[in-house]
Amino acid sequence: MSSATLPPARDLSRRRADTLDRLSGGFHMWLATGSDGHGAHLIPVAYVWNGSALTTATFRRSRTVSNLRARPAARLAIGDTADVVLIDAYPVLLDVPTIDVASAEAFAKVSTDPRNAPDTFVYIRLVPKRILAWNSLAEFSGRTLMLDGSWLDTPVD
Amino acid sequence: MSSATLPPARDLSRRRADTLDRLSGGFHMWLATGSDGHGAHLIPVAYVWNGSALTTATFRRSRTVSNLRARPAARLAIGDTADVVLIDAYPVLLDVPTIDVASAEAFAKVSTDPRNAPDTFVYIRLVPKRILAWNSLAEFSGRTLMLDGSWLDTPVD
Repeated sequence: MSSATLPPARDLSRRRADTLDRLSGGFHMWLATGSDGHGAHLIPVAYVWNGSALTTATFRRSRTVSNLRARPAARLAIGDTADVVLIDAYPVLLDVPTIDVASAEAFAKVSTDPRNAPDTFVYIRLVPKRILAWNSLAEFSGRTLMLDGSWLDTPVD
Repeated sequence: MSSATLPPARDLSRRRADTLDRLSGGFHMWLATGSDGHGAHLIPVAYVWNGSALTTATFRRSRTVSNLRARPAARLAIGDTADVVLIDAYPVLLDVPTIDVASAEAFAKVSTDPRNAPDTFVYIRLVPKRILAWNSLAEFSGRTLMLDGSWLDTPVD
């Protein structure tokens, strides 16, 4: 691919706005987790975004949950491989009865409702620590939008 | 979601045919890798399918490659979160000069050509060991299409 064919790269503020639109407009993501001795696991899950964190849920007895208990770190992908949002997130496991009503109601609109089987499911709140976004090779520079949980005002890459 | 709203589940042979179409028709995937002490990594990459294995490439000095050297296992996702193909694959790292011409030519059509920077890139051949596919909750049963590298003729789940 020659650089002449690439669309112009979005600036940081535009990528941040687009990423927030993507987070709030979407409801499916890929969720990767790993732990020592088990390598990487990867599943598709529904999510909702409340402006600062994602909430999802999965089976309490799953590889994803055992990975997160052993190693509290997750890597998420939103969107598609040609318009990428990648998020390194800190996970908090929440027993079903402890979830806030707003998150539970929002999540029930995009997925099976874990409140109907509270012993089977666990909610996972995912707090972004690092966010990357790019939609072409031209955007590989400037792809870091958030570091250490803070949105950047100037590019670092 | 009530079961009444779900489309009928595809049978195993139809899912296999659809999955092979997806593999040969697509050229982007999510690639998850992990190694002890590092948790999960997840990147979008281009690929080509030759009927029995996927070929991709990435930076020789990348988390993905160091993970694969430490733990030769990968989990791939093709398609989207609403029409899922998940593959557990065995990875073989191939130095650029050792790749076969057919794979190299096909890959150059969908990505940067690693042959232009053989010291920077490494090819990765990914041999499927286990393949799962589903496009709705109704298809969660019967989602396993391949086990131990062999396509199944009868469902196991």
